Amino acid sequence: MQIYIGNQNYSSWSLRGWLIFAQYNLEVEVIKLPLFKPEFYQTLKAITPTTKVPTLVDSNITVWDSLAILEYINECYLNGQAWPNDPSHRAKARALACEMHSGFTALRNEMPMNCRATRRIKLSETARHEIERIDQMWSQQMSEFPEEWLFGEWSITDAMYAPIALRFQTYQISLSDLASQYQKKVINSPAIQRWLNEASLETDIVQEDEAGDEV
Amino acid sequence: MQIYIGNQNYSSWSLRGWLIFAQYNLEVEVIKLPLFKPEFYQTLKAITPTTKVPTLVDSNITVWDSLAILEYINECYLNGQAWPNDPSHRAKARALACEMHSGFTALRNEMPMNCRATRRIKLSETARHEIERIDQMWSQQMSEFPEEWLFGEWSITDAMYAPIALRFQTYQISLSDLASQYQKKVINSPAIQRWLNEASLETDIVQEDEAGDEV
Ligand SMILES: N[C@@H](CCC(=O)N[C@@H](CS)C(=O)NCC(=O)O)C(=O)O
Ligand SMILES: N[C@@H](CCC(=O)N[C@@H](CS)C(=O)NCC(=O)O)C(=O)O
Repeated sequence: MQIYIGNQNYSSWSLRGWLIFAQYNLEVEVIKLPLFKPEFYQTLKAITPTTKVPTLVDSNITVWDSLAILEYINECYLNGQAWPNDPSHRAKARALACEMHSGFTALRNEMPMNCRATRRIKLSETARHEIERIDQMWSQQMSEFPEEWLFGEWSITDAMYAPIALRFQTYQISLSDLASQYQKKVINSPAIQRWLNEASLETDIVQEDEAGDEV
Repeated sequence: MQIYIGNQNYSSWSLRGWLIFAQYNLEVEVIKLPLFKPEFYQTLKAITPTTKVPTLVDSNITVWDSLAILEYINECYLNGQAWPNDPSHRAKARALACEMHSGFTALRNEMPMNCRATRRIKLSETARHEIERIDQMWSQQMSEFPEEWLFGEWSITDAMYAPIALRFQTYQISLSDLASQYQKKVINSPAIQRWLNEASLETDIVQEDEAGDEV
């Protein structure tokens, strides 16, 4: 199995797809492509119609899109354990994952993932509302599952929000106590520490993602 | 079970969530709210954190987001039959569904769903590329499953693309033969005909969604 990802410092969707392998210690060959460079598109053109990362190749099966990859691995290699077992938790976990997959566009545009950096940024009102929504969501889950993952055990929903925890660190967003408890749990987890280490070794700069003033 | 939807003439995400009930003749109470009106937000505020439609309420379980609703109904009421059975088809079906769920933003913005209308519109280059991608996707599936749904049997992926078939009709987009074969199949299906009938009885106008010149 191969997963194609972008620069680890910048590629938030790649992180979401990659994380399930790291979290469950599943074997996968990671092929890193430099975002937006000709080499990126040349390589991906041959395997995906969207030329985006992450893209997974599992012998004759190709899956593009982070959420589709997460569902695929969960079904085919994890016996469904990456969604909560309780149907009402599972339904909510899917709704939260889908909220991320299709939304939070102001936050995503204004606060590009940039693992290495510490920045200060002026946010639009829409982005601030999106941050409030995430704070409220994380706090609610932490009051139900104190010091755990969003639904107790690690789930696909945690993969979807991991890059947000990193962005909140980069752009120094202050969170309520419970939300910040969750943010710390994510950042301190072994899989995310491994990702951050790998990102710190990269030297490429993607200018489009260098938003905000350095602190 | 209740599903909250918006105006049927305009609300493309509502159609995606509603369609699985119509397709499989599952019982559900449809609660229609007038998009963007105070009543819309007042009603939804009490049941969803995102105040968007579609939202499903199944006794103590609330699911917002179309894709999360489709996955929920498939798992809990349809024994998984709304995804293709073959793992490689299922993986691809999910990738295509996710492509729609998270993308095609130019097309979605420039060509709002408007079932009753026939319009002419000037499109951006990005929107034209998105249309080409969909044409290519539909054609590819039709050459594999001639005159069938995208993966043979009806699937969640067909729900995701149904509003696109309607938009291509409204804005008179010309498609390749195979893609247009699929478009006709969607539009002529009993479930979509029922939706269109119900939309034709509505009288509210949502000005934001009245793009293009009348033909
Ligand atoms: N909906 C997709 C989004 C993937 C995506 O936008 N990936 C970015 C990198 S984080 C990319 O490949 N960008 C290259 C491009 O858009 O040309 C997913 O969930 O995987
Ligand atoms: N990702 C959501 C999108 C839902 C959505 O944007 N719905 C629109 C109507 S089609 C809505 O409720 N708009 C009201 C608003 O944004 O205030 C889904 O898949 O259900």
